[in-house]
Parts: sequence; structure tokens; C-alpha cells
Amino acid sequence: MTLAPVLDRIDADMPAALERLLDLLRIPSISTDPAFKPDCDRAADWMVADLASMGFEARKCPTPGHPMVVAHYPGPEGAPHLLFYGHYDVQPVDPLHLWDRDPFDPEVQQDGGRTVIRGRGAADDKGQLMTFVEAFRAWIAVHGALPARITVFLEGEEESGSPSLIPFMQEHADELRCDLAIICDTGMFESRVPAITTMLRGLLGEELTVRAANKDLHSGSFGGAAANPIRILARALASLHDETGRITIAGFYDDVPELPDALRAQWQGLAFDHAKFLGDVGLALPAGEVGRTPLEMLWSRPTCEINGIWGGYTGAGFKTVLPAEAHAKVSFRLVGQQDPWKLREAFRDHIRAHIPADCSVEFHGHGNAPASVMPVDNPAFERARAALTEEWGVPAAYIGCGGSIPIAGYFQGILGMDAMLIGFGKDDDQIHSPNEKYDLESFHKGIRSWARILARIAD
Amino acid sequence: MTLAPVLDRIDADMPAALERLLDLLRIPSISTDPAFKPDCDRAADWMVADLASMGFEARKCPTPGHPMVVAHYPGPEGAPHLLFYGHYDVQPVDPLHLWDRDPFDPEVQQDGGRTVIRGRGAADDKGQLMTFVEAFRAWIAVHGALPARITVFLEGEEESGSPSLIPFMQEHADELRCDLAIICDTGMFESRVPAITTMLRGLLGEELTVRAANKDLHSGSFGGAAANPIRILARALASLHDETGRITIAGFYDDVPELPDALRAQWQGLAFDHAKFLGDVGLALPAGEVGRTPLEMLWSRPTCEINGIWGGYTGAGFKTVLPAEAHAKVSFRLVGQQDPWKLREAFRDHIRAHIPADCSVEFHGHGNAPASVMPVDNPAFERARAALTEEWGVPAAYIGCGGSIPIAGYFQGILGMDAMLIGFGKDDDQIHSPNEKYDLESFHKGIRSWARILARIAD
Repeated sequence: MTLAPVLDRIDADMPAALERLLDLLRIPSISTDPAFKPDCDRAADWMVADLASMGFEARKCPTPGHPMVVAHYPGPEGAPHLLFYGHYDVQPVDPLHLWDRDPFDPEVQQDGGRTVIRGRGAADDKGQLMTFVEAFRAWIAVHGALPARITVFLEGEEESGSPSLIPFMQEHADELRCDLAIICDTGMFESRVPAITTMLRGLLGEELTVRAANKDLHSGSFGGAAANPIRILARALASLHDETGRITIAGFYDDVPELPDALRAQWQGLAFDHAKFLGDVGLALPAGEVGRTPLEMLWSRPTCEINGIWGGYTGAGFKTVLPAEAHAKVSFRLVGQQDPWKLREAFRDHIRAHIPADCSVEFHGHGNAPASVMPVDNPAFERARAALTEEWGVPAAYIGCGGSIPIAGYFQGILGMDAMLIGFGKDDDQIHSPNEKYDLESFHKGIRSWARILARIAD
Repeated sequence: MTLAPVLDRIDADMPAALERLLDLLRIPSISTDPAFKPDCDRAADWMVADLASMGFEARKCPTPGHPMVVAHYPGPEGAPHLLFYGHYDVQPVDPLHLWDRDPFDPEVQQDGGRTVIRGRGAADDKGQLMTFVEAFRAWIAVHGALPARITVFLEGEEESGSPSLIPFMQEHADELRCDLAIICDTGMFESRVPAITTMLRGLLGEELTVRAANKDLHSGSFGGAAANPIRILARALASLHDETGRITIAGFYDDVPELPDALRAQWQGLAFDHAKFLGDVGLALPAGEVGRTPLEMLWSRPTCEINGIWGGYTGAGFKTVLPAEAHAKVSFRLVGQQDPWKLREAFRDHIRAHIPADCSVEFHGHGNAPASVMPVDNPAFERARAALTEEWGVPAAYIGCGGSIPIAGYFQGILGMDAMLIGFGKDDDQIHSPNEKYDLESFHKGIRSWARILARIAD
């Protein structure tokens, strides 16, 4: 089966491919908010129907949360069996007033000389997962078949901690186990260099509620005498970092390796523009550990961030209240061999030590995953790298990633398969932020990249 | 004019007096929330109509905020001229789900052997201001006149920083100036000892917004490298107190006097039950400066409290966001000669010192008032104390108050009049909290107390 007509077919089919993507983006499949449960279900149905329409044996698999989509397509005798992973759920859209248009009324726009697809999920991850789906469609349209045996596995809980993922993978291990898992949820390096991500940080999410008095108190009647849970919370959270930006939780750095010199040298060769990286979002000063570069912080150092905080009176005007409770959401990015379960307990112990004896704190875990390092000695990595280099005309790079894609670790740990992460996101895609977009270039050349990768790996 | 028939009339009129109060409590006059502006206006109209119905020359006076109510009643030749102050606005009602009933559908209930009036504003301050209004009504009904010349001055912005109060008092100084101002917005000591409050803490309210990146960021793509405004805010707020509970703002204690030994001795004689005070709200440990009792903290020490905090993702589930901004509302209770304007600048300087150079902080002032100390050598104080002792059968006390009633200082500073603070609130009235109530005993004996005080001062 030859590649050239597939690439031609992809080019010719772009208008229709864009219409399909816009249709999928119109479904507000926000997985973390129970109000959007029917929409998540609808997005799964959409994927099943689309995959079935091109000949996949596709089905929606219920879970206690949002459904999985699993689809299979046979390949030639002796061809490798590849699993492609993506997620059809999206992040919440608040603050809504900062969006230039309805996040779920997507459109193709001109933006500073580039053509972009604007809408929630355009880059993370609907636009990305449709790159491999469209590549399959073109192969089948041209050759009546795919050059490899393919399994598609789509999740609907990636943006909400993937609570159903591990049990589902365990229960369907035989069905999902292939020669290689391919994950399309990452980006290019510096928005121009095609990249295979080989290091991923882990994630630990925690929510805490500090409780003091058994009701809201008047700060005139009780202020200065009674405990204020916001003060206690602020103090406990402020204690999580020292003056040099290091995290103070006992044992936190025990399993954090220093970067090997060779990798450090390769990363330095990437000529990452630190000033531009921060300048693009209106900042200027590296905010992490003193003496480490932003790239090192992002790819190889663990972090502790407060992602949300609330308590007391937050409306218009003023209320002199000492609230009964205060809340925060805290997350950790993990690296190396850091153990999320061990660190969860260490974090909770650290916070508890800051709670007065007559107050209390309650914790709620929001998912966790260890960090992952990919096996670049698997031959598929070099084949994919060659295919990417060919499509983009720039040598493709192995890079790290500050984000957490827990499933990469699960493929290794639960199914015993290697995983390869390739995606076409750009730094200004504004994923998780208002006005998310995906470049038309990412979408178009992304589809073409998969066609080339399929050809090389199946060869 | 004799007192006894007035007291009888008060007793006989209680059912009707209660109906009037419930009617007033049904008006949701929340002054801090612009959505309730028409209701504030309606409460002012209600007061004007009620005062006019008993012969007061009453009117509603517009301000840039909520209207004032001013009413006059002539007195006998040579009788003193007294001004009675109260406020018809109320606190917000959130969290609404903790109320046992609609806060603006008040009712008279049996509660643990006591009869209480339940609803927002029952104690703060509608129930209290109606005690003197009902006392006037009884005097006029029995004698066809009042024993002193009376001015009633009601405010609608007390719970939202009183922005219109100073200009209004300055503009209407000649009309409002009397021999003595009487403020009914305070409580009894330990819920059983009638009290005249002679020390009030001042108040300074501040709102701050910390801004970092120019948009929300993904904590995977930026966490550990980019500034997190919640972390900056938590750190800045946590720095406001040291390990001993002292406030760390430069110069904060410069104008804070130590309690005179005599007053300290008198307060110790009040046999305040510190354990019960905290135990009643589910707490056990004094949370103020180390080595100071809760009573001393409440009445004679300044405080700094965080009354509200918010930033990032606060909905259900989790969002790995680094928000663009984070917010807090902070208030200070002031004592002695602490200057709110000077401390506002010192607070802002303190916070600014914690903001990285590439981030910013914006402040919004929410009103301020210095502390007040009342002149107990004015003979009206001892007459009122005797009247209270007579009505309640317990020696009335001079006490301090942890709250801030800025108008007491304004009467002194702007109109050159002494002010006397008498009220009948109890510690468990839950003012500013869900399920606010006012004891029927407070209401009934409060009305009778004013009749007695009027008789003694007019004598």
C-alpha cells in the first residue's frame, strides 16, 4: 500500500475533516462537572458513529463515570498491532467572560497570519485525536484497508482524574494489549519542532477543607479570639515552599533524580527561549526553585501548586465574617520515582501539623499517577521520528513534558506495552484557558504525519 | 408624665409590637448587595411611615447610596434633646443552606425554653431599633407626648461601610446636633447583665487582587516555572501574623495603649467565662496574641482577619490551572489611637513587599473608622445605668465591644456630641450568621428599658 495517494486524499478531504472536527467541538463534554454528563455521553456516541462509518468495529463501554470508546480494525497478516489513545472530554470553560466567543460554538478563524480552529477542546484533545482518525479515514478510502491492525481507545475522564481508567484497563487487558500504544495528547517543541515526548511528570491532586468554629462568626464579636480557618489555611499553604522555592514536605525530594548530564546537554541544545516562554504570558521571572531554568523546572522537577482557594465572603462589598471553613485544591507534579501514595500521606501530615488542636482538616484525593519515562530504544520511536522529520522538514526531537498523562504509565504498568507520545499542539494553544485554539497547520500536517508514521511502522 | 402607665401600655401592646417588627423583618434590606437596593429603599419607607403614624415629622433623605431616615418629635420646654440612632439594613444571608427557614420569612418561635424572634436583622439591628421606637409609641399613646425632644436618625448602609454617613452628617450637622446621641446596636454582657458599651474597636476593610500571568495557565505547561498568584497571596497573608499571633505590619502597635490596671481589674470582676465563650462555637483555644485573654483580645486589642479569599478553580472536581489572579478581603479591628488611614498604607506596603517584580497587586478600600472611647462622666450615663439596673434587676455594667460602630466616633468628631451605646443583644443571637434571632425578652424588656431611661434623663 503506497503512501502518496493517502497524503493526496488527506489534502483533498481537509474541508470535510474540518467540518467533522467542528461538529465534535460543539459537544460540551466537560467531564469534571456532573452537569455535563449527558454531553460526555453524546461525545462518546459521536466517536463510535464516526469510527463505525469507516469500518471500525466500534462500541461505547459504560463505566461508573463517563464511557470509554473502543474500536478495532483488522490489519494485514503479520502487521503490527497499534493502539491509538485520545480523550474526548474537555476542561471547564470558566472564566467564561474572558472568551471572545461561545467556547462550544467553534469556528475556523484567521489569527495573525495563521488559520486556527477556535473552541474548547480544539487542541486538548479533540483536534489531536481527530488527526489519527482522519489519517485512518484516508488510508481506508484510498486502499480499502489500513496497513496495520489498529485499536482505538478513547477516554472521557482525562480532565477529571481518570477514575475509571485503571479498572477498565485491568478488566479489558486482553482486548487492549497490542504491540505499541500511541498517545496523541502532547505538543511540538517551541511550536515548530515535531517532537516525541519521552518524559512525563506524574500528578497528585488533593482538596482540603479546614474547619474552625461550628458556624460563621462576626469578626467584631470573635475576631482575635477565635480561630479563623482562612488564616490557618493560608499559613499552612504558605509553609509548603521555602524561600528558595523548594517544597518543604518531609521526604519530598527523596526519589527525585538529578538530570543526567547527557540529557541536560541535549535540552540545552534545544535553545529554549526562557524569556519568551514567560514573556508570552506577561511574566518575566522564573518562579520555581532558585538556580534552575524554567525548562528544567517544567520537564524534570516536581512542583506543588495551589489550583483553587475559597472561603468566607467573596461577593460584592464586604462582610466582617470569620467563616466556619475554608478550602483549597492543591496539585503536585511528580518526577522520577516519586510515589504519589507516599507523598499524599506526607502532604496530609504536613498540613495537619499546621492545624490547631481545636480545628480540623478534611482531605479528598483527586487522582494520582507516577511520572513516566518512555523506552526510546523501541525501534518504533526512530521510525516515527523519521516520519515526523520528513513531514515537517525539521529534525524531530525527543523532549520532556511538564504535564501529566497518566495513561502512558498505565500502558506500561497494567498492559506491559510501550507507549509513544506524539502530538501537534503549540505553546499558544491556550489549552485549559479561555480562547483555546488548534492551528490548522497542526491539524493538517498532524493527519499527514500519522499517515507517514503508519506507513513506516507497518513497513 | 409618669412612667408606670407607659410600662403597662408597653406590656399590653406587645402582640402588636411583634407584628410590626415581623413586618419590618420581611424586607430583605441587604445593603452590601446592589441587587437589594429597592428593598433598602422600601425599609426606609416603612420606617418613615411608622414614625409619621405616631406624630413624628419624618422623612427619607436620599444619598448616593441607600437613604437615611430622619424624624423629629418636639419635647417639653427645657427638656433635653436626644438623638436615637439605629440601622435598617442587614447583613447578607449566605450560606443560605444553613438557615432553618427563609431568613426573610421571620417568625416567633419557642427555642429551648426561650421565646425568640427568628430572621435576618432580628437582632442586628431592626429588632433593636424598634425597642426605642416602641417606647416612643407607648409614651405618646399614654401621655400624648414624649418627655424629651427626640430626633430619630436611621441609616441604611451600616453593614456595608457607611459610605454616605460622614457627608450626610456634615451636611445636616445643624439638624442632627443634640445634647446626646443614643445608639442602639450593642448587646448585654454575657447575655444577662444589662450594659452600656464604652469602648468600641475601629475598623479598616481592604480588598486585594494579586495578578500574575495575563491569562489562566495549565499547571502542566507552566507549573513550577510561572508565578502562581494564589501562592503569592497565601504567602503574603500568612506573613501578616508572627508565631505569637502578633501582627507584623510595620508600626501597627504604635498607637495601641496597654489596658489601664483599673479597667483590667473591673473586667476581671465581670467573671467572663472564656471556656464557654469559645466552647459555644465549637472551639477551645484562644487564637489571638499569646498571653492575652479572649476578653482582652476582643475589647482592647487590634486584630487582622481574612474575611474572604478566592482564586482559581473552586467548582466540583479538579482543574490543574494556574489562575491569572487571586483575591482576598481583609479587615482590621482598631483600638486606642490607631489611625486607619496610616495603617491602610502600612498594610498595602507590607503586601507589596511580598509581590514579585513581574506580578502586581491592586487594592480597594472598604471603609474605615477609628476606635472610640465614651465619656462616662456625662451624667446621662449614670442615669441610664440606674434605669437599666431597675428594669433588669441586675447591676448594669460598663463594658467594651469587639465590634466597630463607626457612628459613635462620628457623633463625637463631626457633631461634637457625646454618644451612649445601649442594646439588648445576646451572645447567641447569631448576628451576621445563619438563623439570626432576637430574644423576646430582649425586645420586651428593651422597650421597657428605654421608657425608664427616657423618664430618668428627662427628669
